[in-house]
Amino acid sequence: MWVGIDLGGTNTKIALIDEQGKILESKSFSTRSFRTPQAWVKRAFLEIKEFPRVKGVGIGVPGAVDFDRGRIRYLPNLPGWENFPIVERFSAVLGKRIRIAVDNDATAMAVAEWVYGSAKGYASAMCITLGTGVGAGLILEGKVYRGIDGVAGELGHFPLVPWGKACSCGGKGCLERYVGNRALVHWARKLGLLSAKEDDLSIVSDRAKKGDERALDFWDKVAYTLAPTLIGVVNLLNLEVIVVGGGVASAGRPLIGAISRYVKAYAMKVQGKRVKVVKAKLGNSAGVIGASLLPRR
Amino acid sequence: MWVGIDLGGTNTKIALIDEQGKILESKSFSTRSFRTPQAWVKRAFLEIKEFPRVKGVGIGVPGAVDFDRGRIRYLPNLPGWENFPIVERFSAVLGKRIRIAVDNDATAMAVAEWVYGSAKGYASAMCITLGTGVGAGLILEGKVYRGIDGVAGELGHFPLVPWGKACSCGGKGCLERYVGNRALVHWARKLGLLSAKEDDLSIVSDRAKKGDERALDFWDKVAYTLAPTLIGVVNLLNLEVIVVGGGVASAGRPLIGAISRYVKAYAMKVQGKRVKVVKAKLGNSAGVIGASLLPRR
Repeated sequence: MWVGIDLGGTNTKIALIDEQGKILESKSFSTRSFRTPQAWVKRAFLEIKEFPRVKGVGIGVPGAVDFDRGRIRYLPNLPGWENFPIVERFSAVLGKRIRIAVDNDATAMAVAEWVYGSAKGYASAMCITLGTGVGAGLILEGKVYRGIDGVAGELGHFPLVPWGKACSCGGKGCLERYVGNRALVHWARKLGLLSAKEDDLSIVSDRAKKGDERALDFWDKVAYTLAPTLIGVVNLLNLEVIVVGGGVASAGRPLIGAISRYVKAYAMKVQGKRVKVVKAKLGNSAGVIGASLLPRR
Repeated sequence: MWVGIDLGGTNTKIALIDEQGKILESKSFSTRSFRTPQAWVKRAFLEIKEFPRVKGVGIGVPGAVDFDRGRIRYLPNLPGWENFPIVERFSAVLGKRIRIAVDNDATAMAVAEWVYGSAKGYASAMCITLGTGVGAGLILEGKVYRGIDGVAGELGHFPLVPWGKACSCGGKGCLERYVGNRALVHWARKLGLLSAKEDDLSIVSDRAKKGDERALDFWDKVAYTLAPTLIGVVNLLNLEVIVVGGGVASAGRPLIGAISRYVKAYAMKVQGKRVKVVKAKLGNSAGVIGASLLPRR
């Protein structure tokens, strides 16, 4: 049995997962009700000790980690977690016999999709998550690609508009500023697809699924906005598959079909012919499933 | 002794290179004076058979190759070379004892810079060539990265301007359309830095080196145009070093210093701190030196 923990900016999910990646139990608690990472670890421990026969615990976190040393570097949306030695702290309460690993949440999701989901069987894949943030996990030549400092995959901070809007990352014109959840909600409101009080894009997804032309056009334009960066990555990395996940991906075919058409039509000949653009298979569970795989690898 | 061949759209360079990467002899002939790839192979063979103690021959070509099968896929600027089994044809004239390998020219240059030049000692590097075309060779986690079809590295066809100018690759807004040699010559003419008859950017480089403010400003703007895509790649791949080569790189510090400043200032915290942007060390010889390394690996 393995435990996967998905540390989110809002909620923490903890799941007990078997060798086949099946979720047997899952729990959730508010991340922000704990003042310190140490208090959060204690709370997580209370859940884990209820689970039987745990061999290992994996944690996916929304930010930069030092994978080899088992430390968090920093989490943009959770101040106070800088340089937290999360693996060491879990070891202190769980004991040395239990394997523990930490990784970036987008990387964990990519591993889940690679082992059990839409990227299964491919040697090179980019699994993107479209939500509040836009991130990616990379599988290159049959291995998880983390970059020299373990912070690779920041697709949301690829400049879409050269020297465009300032971003909280310190950069300009970042993709996330244009296709992150906040930007899309603002855009959908301007088009009258959401009221000023509504901030749930699944309303626009549902409309599109019912054939609403304006909602379909909205998702087409989201795909059109996102496609150039994906085309560039495909031309540069000659990937086999792009897996689209995250909350926004629930728009389904109106979004993902359009991304696929743009990417295949405008990427270079060999690259465009090769690449597939598909929806993530594991949905909201990819985070905990991917996390549970971290100590097993 | 090893032979490196740099098949260019205009000229072919052939060099005899020792185990330490030193060029002992080199020759050059016009690529386009041969009607067929087979005639070109015969011509190259005449040069190679003059060289003593040749253990292997490597060929760098300006386009897509099937590295494992030793075939050219297609060369955008040399029609008629599609699917040419270049390794087999060289084997037929040179004999089975001589090792032969073919790769993309940007990849060959990256290998040369990695083994002998500015990327030496790094596990992850992108070596870019700025010339008529804009290309890149990637070293990731201590290995040459070619992509699933061997066509990775097409940095020049990363969209800089979303849905911008149409490109001959079938894409839109490609970086090469804005910072390729042709675009830069056009731009320098508009600014009065080149006359209508001049098409040699080294004139503008020389002016900048002498402190000409307008020439310095030109190279700064070239860096400013190029930087967003490099920032994006650095954020996505968390590279250690970007090596800038190709004819345009002869602009030197006014260009490369500015690229370095923009990339380090606007990339994300960890990525920007890590990455170095440096000039290629091997200059025009990188092509043949890198090619000579291909059969040795």
